[in-house]
Amino acid sequence: MAGTIHFKQMTVIGVGLIGGSLGLVARRKRLVKAVVGYGKRRGEMQRAIASGAIDRYFLSLDRAVEEADLVVLATPVGTFEKICVAMAPHLKPGTIVTDVGSVKGGLVTKLEGLMPEGVFFVGAHPIAGRERSGVESAAIDLFAGHRCILTPTKQTLRRALTKIRTFWEAVGAGTMEMEPAEHDRIMAAVSHLPHLVAYALMEVLSHPSLTKDNPVRFSGGGLRDFTRIAASAPEMWRDIFLANNDNVVHMVDLYIQALETIKKKIVAGDGPGLVEIFTRARTVREKSVAP
Amino acid sequence: MAGTIHFKQMTVIGVGLIGGSLGLVARRKRLVKAVVGYGKRRGEMQRAIASGAIDRYFLSLDRAVEEADLVVLATPVGTFEKICVAMAPHLKPGTIVTDVGSVKGGLVTKLEGLMPEGVFFVGAHPIAGRERSGVESAAIDLFAGHRCILTPTKQTLRRALTKIRTFWEAVGAGTMEMEPAEHDRIMAAVSHLPHLVAYALMEVLSHPSLTKDNPVRFSGGGLRDFTRIAASAPEMWRDIFLANNDNVVHMVDLYIQALETIKKKIVAGDGPGLVEIFTRARTVREKSVAP
Repeated sequence: MAGTIHFKQMTVIGVGLIGGSLGLVARRKRLVKAVVGYGKRRGEMQRAIASGAIDRYFLSLDRAVEEADLVVLATPVGTFEKICVAMAPHLKPGTIVTDVGSVKGGLVTKLEGLMPEGVFFVGAHPIAGRERSGVESAAIDLFAGHRCILTPTKQTLRRALTKIRTFWEAVGAGTMEMEPAEHDRIMAAVSHLPHLVAYALMEVLSHPSLTKDNPVRFSGGGLRDFTRIAASAPEMWRDIFLANNDNVVHMVDLYIQALETIKKKIVAGDGPGLVEIFTRARTVREKSVAP
Repeated sequence: MAGTIHFKQMTVIGVGLIGGSLGLVARRKRLVKAVVGYGKRRGEMQRAIASGAIDRYFLSLDRAVEEADLVVLATPVGTFEKICVAMAPHLKPGTIVTDVGSVKGGLVTKLEGLMPEGVFFVGAHPIAGRERSGVESAAIDLFAGHRCILTPTKQTLRRALTKIRTFWEAVGAGTMEMEPAEHDRIMAAVSHLPHLVAYALMEVLSHPSLTKDNPVRFSGGGLRDFTRIAASAPEMWRDIFLANNDNVVHMVDLYIQALETIKKKIVAGDGPGLVEIFTRARTVREKSVAP
C-alpha cells in the first residue's frame, strides 16, 4: 500500500523513538500528507523537524489535533487518559485516535469512553524498540518486519480498525489482533517481566556492599545484555508497570518462586535438578527464535 | 611473546569451547610444540582434531598427561578434584597444572593440595565465552582483548605464575591477579547471578499456565538477550552454582530483596520510587561499558 495516502494529517503526540520513527516512515513512504508533532518542549520539536520525523509542530494540544484525521498517542501510557480528556473537545468527527502503548487492557476501554461522538479509538502496539530513546534514535526501519498487535473491542468501528491495520502494514509491520486483556497477560510475561528482572539486577549491582569493588568492571557479554535492557526510558517503564500492575505482580511472584526453586536446589546440592531446569531453558529459546 | 615456545606439550582436559579455543590459538601462534587433548568420547576428540584445536588425543588420562609440562583443566569445575586425584601420580615434576574454571575460592586450595611433589597449580579464569558450547564453536580470537584473572595463593610458585601469565598474554588476553575468594564474590555478582536470573526467567516462561499461549512468540529483542544467556551449557552452570554456592545464594537473596522492593512500589503506585530505581540502573551500565 506504499504510495497511497492513508491520512491527510497524522498528529503524533510525543515525538520520541516510536512516535518519531512512525513520522519518519510515514513521511518517507508518503503514507500521510502531513505529520504534525505535539510536545511540550520547543527544543524537542525542533529536533523532531530536523530529523525528518515531522513536518511541523504545535506546543498547543488543541491546535495540534484540530485538523488531524489520525492522532497517535506516543507518550508514556500513564499520560494517555489525561491527553484524551484534554484533546477530546478539539477532535473533528471521523478522526481516528490510536496509540503505540505497551499496555492495553482496561486502558483501551477507558480511552474509548473518552472519545467524542464520531471519533473512534483503535488500540495498537508495535513490538519494536531499542535501548536508546528520543527522536534522535528514531529510524525508518524500526517497525519493518516487526509485529504490530491491534486490540479491538466490541466498541471498535470495523472501518477504523481496517484503516489502522492497513496503515501499519504500509509502514512495514505485520499485524495481528488480540484481546486487550490477553495482550497484557502475554506482554507481562515476555516483555514487562524481563525488563523488571533486568532493572532488579542493576539495583543489586549498585548495592553498597558491591560498589566498593566496582564488580561490573569484570562483566562479560552476559551482563552487558542486561545493562542494555535496563537502559530503557525510566518514565516509560514506570507507566507500563503501573498500568499493567496486576499482571506484572503476578509474574514477579511466579518469578520469585522460580528463583527460590533454583536456590533450594543449589543449597541441597541437587545437580540433576539444576540440569533439568537449565536444559528446559533451552527449549524456550527454540520457541522464541522465530521472528 | 608470540613466536616463543612456552610449553612443549600442553594437555587440554576437556576440549570444548574454551579448551578448544585455547588449543587453536596455541597451535596457530606456535606457543606450544604440541597440544594433546583428553576426553572420554572418541568422536569428540576426532572433531577436536578436525577443527585444529589439538594435534592428538588420548582417551586415557594417564597417557594424556604423562608427557605434559602444562595441563589445562577445561571441564566443568565439579570434575576438577576427581581429575587431579586421578592424574596426580602420572604428572612429572616441573609440570604446571592450570585451569580455566569460573570458580576459584576453596577449590584452588583443594587442588593445590592434590598436586604431587614438584608439580604446581596456578588458578586462571579467562573471562570469555559465547552462547554455544563445544569445540565446533571454538574460535582463535575468543580470548583476544579479554581479561584472564589469575588467582595465586601463598602456595603458588612465583615462577609458575609468571609462566602462566606470560602464556595468557601471548594468547592475547590481558591478565590481572585476584584473591580466589574475591574472584568468587565478584563473579557471583557479575556473572553467576545474571545467568541464574536468566535461567529463572526461562523457567517462568515454560510455566504450564503460560505455555498454552506460547507467549515467547511475541518476544522482542529484550527477551532474546535472556534466552541467549540461558542457552549456555547446563552442566557447566550446575557446577559453577554448586561450587560457588554460598556467594550465589547470598546474591540470590539480595536479588529477591530488590524484586520485592520494586514489586512493593508497583503495588503502592509509587511512580517516583520506580523512576529512581530505573534511573540508577543506567549508571551501572555506564560503569560497565569499559572493556
